[in-house]
Amino acid sequence: MAVGNDNLPELLPVAGVRVGTASAGIKTPGRKDLVLFELAAGTHCAGVFTQNAFCAAPVTVAQRNLADCDGQPTYWLVNTGNANAGTGEAGIAAAEACIDAVAAATSTRAAQVLPFSTGVIGEPLPVDRIVEAIPDVVSRLRPEGWAEAGEGILTTDTRPKGASVQFEFDGKTYTVSGIAKGAGMIRPNMATMLAYLATDAAVEVDALRAMLSGATQRSFNRITIDGDTSTNDACVLAATGAAGNDFVTSIDSPLAIALSDAVEQVCVELAQGLVRDGEGASKFVSVKVEQGRHEQECLEVAFTIAHSPLVKTALFASDPNWGRILAAIGRADIDDLVVEDVSVFLGDTLIAENGCRASSYTEEQGVAAMEPEELEIRVVLNRGDAEATVWTTDFSYDYVKINAEYRT
Amino acid sequence: MAVGNDNLPELLPVAGVRVGTASAGIKTPGRKDLVLFELAAGTHCAGVFTQNAFCAAPVTVAQRNLADCDGQPTYWLVNTGNANAGTGEAGIAAAEACIDAVAAATSTRAAQVLPFSTGVIGEPLPVDRIVEAIPDVVSRLRPEGWAEAGEGILTTDTRPKGASVQFEFDGKTYTVSGIAKGAGMIRPNMATMLAYLATDAAVEVDALRAMLSGATQRSFNRITIDGDTSTNDACVLAATGAAGNDFVTSIDSPLAIALSDAVEQVCVELAQGLVRDGEGASKFVSVKVEQGRHEQECLEVAFTIAHSPLVKTALFASDPNWGRILAAIGRADIDDLVVEDVSVFLGDTLIAENGCRASSYTEEQGVAAMEPEELEIRVVLNRGDAEATVWTTDFSYDYVKINAEYRT
Repeated sequence: MAVGNDNLPELLPVAGVRVGTASAGIKTPGRKDLVLFELAAGTHCAGVFTQNAFCAAPVTVAQRNLADCDGQPTYWLVNTGNANAGTGEAGIAAAEACIDAVAAATSTRAAQVLPFSTGVIGEPLPVDRIVEAIPDVVSRLRPEGWAEAGEGILTTDTRPKGASVQFEFDGKTYTVSGIAKGAGMIRPNMATMLAYLATDAAVEVDALRAMLSGATQRSFNRITIDGDTSTNDACVLAATGAAGNDFVTSIDSPLAIALSDAVEQVCVELAQGLVRDGEGASKFVSVKVEQGRHEQECLEVAFTIAHSPLVKTALFASDPNWGRILAAIGRADIDDLVVEDVSVFLGDTLIAENGCRASSYTEEQGVAAMEPEELEIRVVLNRGDAEATVWTTDFSYDYVKINAEYRT
Repeated sequence: MAVGNDNLPELLPVAGVRVGTASAGIKTPGRKDLVLFELAAGTHCAGVFTQNAFCAAPVTVAQRNLADCDGQPTYWLVNTGNANAGTGEAGIAAAEACIDAVAAATSTRAAQVLPFSTGVIGEPLPVDRIVEAIPDVVSRLRPEGWAEAGEGILTTDTRPKGASVQFEFDGKTYTVSGIAKGAGMIRPNMATMLAYLATDAAVEVDALRAMLSGATQRSFNRITIDGDTSTNDACVLAATGAAGNDFVTSIDSPLAIALSDAVEQVCVELAQGLVRDGEGASKFVSVKVEQGRHEQECLEVAFTIAHSPLVKTALFASDPNWGRILAAIGRADIDDLVVEDVSVFLGDTLIAENGCRASSYTEEQGVAAMEPEELEIRVVLNRGDAEATVWTTDFSYDYVKINAEYRT
């Protein structure tokens, strides 16, 4: 299952970026499972990575190389079908063997190649098959390769996710494009499942890092499918400079603000795309918490609702079982909650206030409010000015099926 | 589904306690859904209740009355079929109307009656039907009523849970008996779903409170089915004094220690019984975390594993997908975890160490270790002397079915 329109939007090429996709037969013979991004000389790059202590070998190597090359890598190599996680020292060596092959085939330093992997955890990476496919993926590099790459990085996803935004500034047109994957083990923490973004703007590395960090905080870090933070989350943003602007050096200039908005817009579209394609998803649910004391408590309440298996199964059943929403709010880890002050809405329908069902509420309203494929749960805490929204899915038979059968 | 033996053990009467069960037709006509406990004069009582901010009306009233009567209530009134939660001021009035009816029928003060409710959240309590059934439940009070009461408090449970322990001390025989219910919305926080215990020992209220608190910390507060803390959790322990011992006034005396052990043993049996009958459960899983810096971090790691939908669906599939266990450990909220120091066992089988699969591990071992209906996941953090165990279940199609269809 998946929610909403499944047409990949037109993905605009980004000057200075070429993308290639090939098949290495990592898990399934013939499946596109290897993607290479090539970034023109002078491209700056920022990345955010999983905070999971058991981070995967490619995450360790990518972070190290990104620092070693002063934020100016030339290649991103991505494989699906195997996460190269929980593989210890051998996993590090495997990741290095793959990027060595890219370096050899392209006459680049290995430190300028960042590796990324996604798929099953704990199996040895089939290095030989990947190495063998490197010349093929190099030969397929082309500016228009984004959409095919969007297919080549998927695992349990049922559809590719991509987004492009263009904006004009001072007579120049700037482009931001991105692709992402992920449908399970999705509760990003300071990062995301795999996401690749590029812009043709010229941006200094520090400013780029700040832009990416802000955008991921308000996009990938606001989604959850099952609460399980992955070992392999990574999101990278390249700025090729091909647009020819003077380098953006801070996040405060008018161009920086316009670019940050475009990056965030792409990140939000990708993040919501991940949720819409969440494992077994039949609903896309925005959980908005308003009038909190600070953003952190709004997020705590929103994520407690979004992670509750009882709320999620009620969403699957389109059952307006608002008592489960109240119970989740009540167990959220926030201080001094006065439940009589809290109001809860399903869409536009007020369902609970003063600690109980709203007097105006009818079961018919609740059933109607739960019916749409996309809906909003809105909680008004009535004790401050902060707000936050997270996006999530329901919990269905298919979620159990997908995850009980994933390895077999 | 449910795990393990479903025979209710023999529940021993506790001198000074009579128990009655009747049908009020609260949700289903003819179903036993109303239970009354009568405690002899001089009985002391301690209780622990949910920490959910949206606690139910009966929880509010029971806590208030327990204080008002100086820990010496005469009746506990329990209904199933309706939680009287999320019902605001009207819910308080409904709970009071029910206990007023008990007080009138038994010539007791209303403050000596503690109300408890469990069932669907957010529906008005059908007070008239309960009040009408009070004379009947009073007439059914008898010392041997425990097993029938175990049936009368169930909701989505598939079997009653009860336990009795007897011990000898200084020539006297002491008895502790208890019943509990609960199969979903189970992640007790400082309390439990409904549990009722009694002993014939004489114990001062403060000492009784300390005993109950310690026992629930190591039993009900160590279980989780779905991570959702209920609005109605309550556990009460009565000490009738019928055994004729001198009052226990501290938890340090030899008798107090023997009694605390017996109370904890009953609580652990009841708590494990809740997990074995968890909604859709096909596995009973002990998650033991050893060699942590302190108990709290052991519990954090254990609960992160026990709540992971990915671990739980792998357990349902009997799939030794240990990568998901590592990923859960890695995202647990503890400081400075060195993943290379961590070892993970399934039963007696070492599956992971040094951040990756153990060299001795084979898939056949993993499959064999996952096969039993009852199994242990053991994590060795290798950085201290603390340990903790929590008990949980898997996540099955039936969990989704039960919770998607509960109200309909």
